[in-house]
Amino acid sequence: MGQVPHKSVVIVAGGKGKRMDTLAPKQFLLLDGIPVLIHTLQKFYQYDHNISIVLVLPQDQAAIWSDLCREYDFRVSHKVVAGGAERFHSVKHGLAHIEDDWLVAIHDGVRPLVSNHIIDKGYKIAAHSGGAVPVVPVNQTIRLVDEHSNKVVAREKYRLCQTPQTFKAKWIREAYNQHFKPEFTDDAMVYESCGYHVVLYEGSTQNIKITNPVDLEIARVILKP
Amino acid sequence: MGQVPHKSVVIVAGGKGKRMDTLAPKQFLLLDGIPVLIHTLQKFYQYDHNISIVLVLPQDQAAIWSDLCREYDFRVSHKVVAGGAERFHSVKHGLAHIEDDWLVAIHDGVRPLVSNHIIDKGYKIAAHSGGAVPVVPVNQTIRLVDEHSNKVVAREKYRLCQTPQTFKAKWIREAYNQHFKPEFTDDAMVYESCGYHVVLYEGSTQNIKITNPVDLEIARVILKP
Repeated sequence: MGQVPHKSVVIVAGGKGKRMDTLAPKQFLLLDGIPVLIHTLQKFYQYDHNISIVLVLPQDQAAIWSDLCREYDFRVSHKVVAGGAERFHSVKHGLAHIEDDWLVAIHDGVRPLVSNHIIDKGYKIAAHSGGAVPVVPVNQTIRLVDEHSNKVVAREKYRLCQTPQTFKAKWIREAYNQHFKPEFTDDAMVYESCGYHVVLYEGSTQNIKITNPVDLEIARVILKP
Repeated sequence: MGQVPHKSVVIVAGGKGKRMDTLAPKQFLLLDGIPVLIHTLQKFYQYDHNISIVLVLPQDQAAIWSDLCREYDFRVSHKVVAGGAERFHSVKHGLAHIEDDWLVAIHDGVRPLVSNHIIDKGYKIAAHSGGAVPVVPVNQTIRLVDEHSNKVVAREKYRLCQTPQTFKAKWIREAYNQHFKPEFTDDAMVYESCGYHVVLYEGSTQNIKITNPVDLEIARVILKP
């Protein structure tokens, strides 16, 4: 039996909170009395106390974050790294602190409700196949639109992607050595553009991304016991 | 200036509530102290007091519904029609009570949060073009999956469809004269299969469908002033 690779996570918290109609970036808003981002880091720490956590934050938020950690007595060990111009660059900065023989999950800072099961499955699949992406089915009729027309497509053939997206670190680091393209909307796309393939697995509708004010309320509802 | 056509709505409330882990069909669950379905009918009545409302219900729910109307003192005039085997047949039963020169919106009974604006825009577009469908953008990475592979597609080219879907009654009634096909997942598909086209317009992420228990909680949050 081979040794289980060391686990790590790059948590990307880039947003400026513009859509939230609030001055605080979304990741610092309180959920159940605790900043969203602390929930997110805690989820990975609870999964594996030996995990290496790299948090990528816009440079001007580092001081706020360290104040928050003090205020909420958050002592889980993690490295804070400055973000870049686009999410692509932020992830790349984070991956610079990961070792090639590790597994690395890349996760949105504003997905605080990720489950232990989804995290675990991502590492297991990545250890075996190289790349893993949690997805959920599309439960509404979906249309493909172009300039001149639009038509319904078979929704059962589509999946919506979530994070964490988990990889063999060497391979995703190699993928992030290429130049940025605006069409990269997630890490799996960067990875695949190098010829690698990802395995899709079942995510959860509860693993929501806090994007709009109502999402924070929804997260509160989901958290309720 | 032509006369504005009479407005009508067919509200389809078919579900058995299996997914809700409760014995009550979803449309009878309470939202803000009132059954979901009463909210839905009220939205259309508030939009236009002269509207003709046809409610399609499974036969065995008619008695419950009339009890609820009494209990909640709901006096808005509407016709109750028995549903069919599939949503397709239920809509068809409802359309039998609509006149050819009317406009008709077809709406999910479990979308109680539809706005006045979305209802109004549907009728206006349908009066002009024949068919109108409210849609929202896809805000997650989306993948197309087949037996052997999967790939990311350009999410900006896709839209998720909602209801009400609004039509010139004559044309949608004609479309519903064809035989049922299992691939019909909404009314616009039935309509288009006769060679007609629909106009897409902006829906709202708040116009949710109550499908799972958490959706009812989300609806409560959205309703909060």
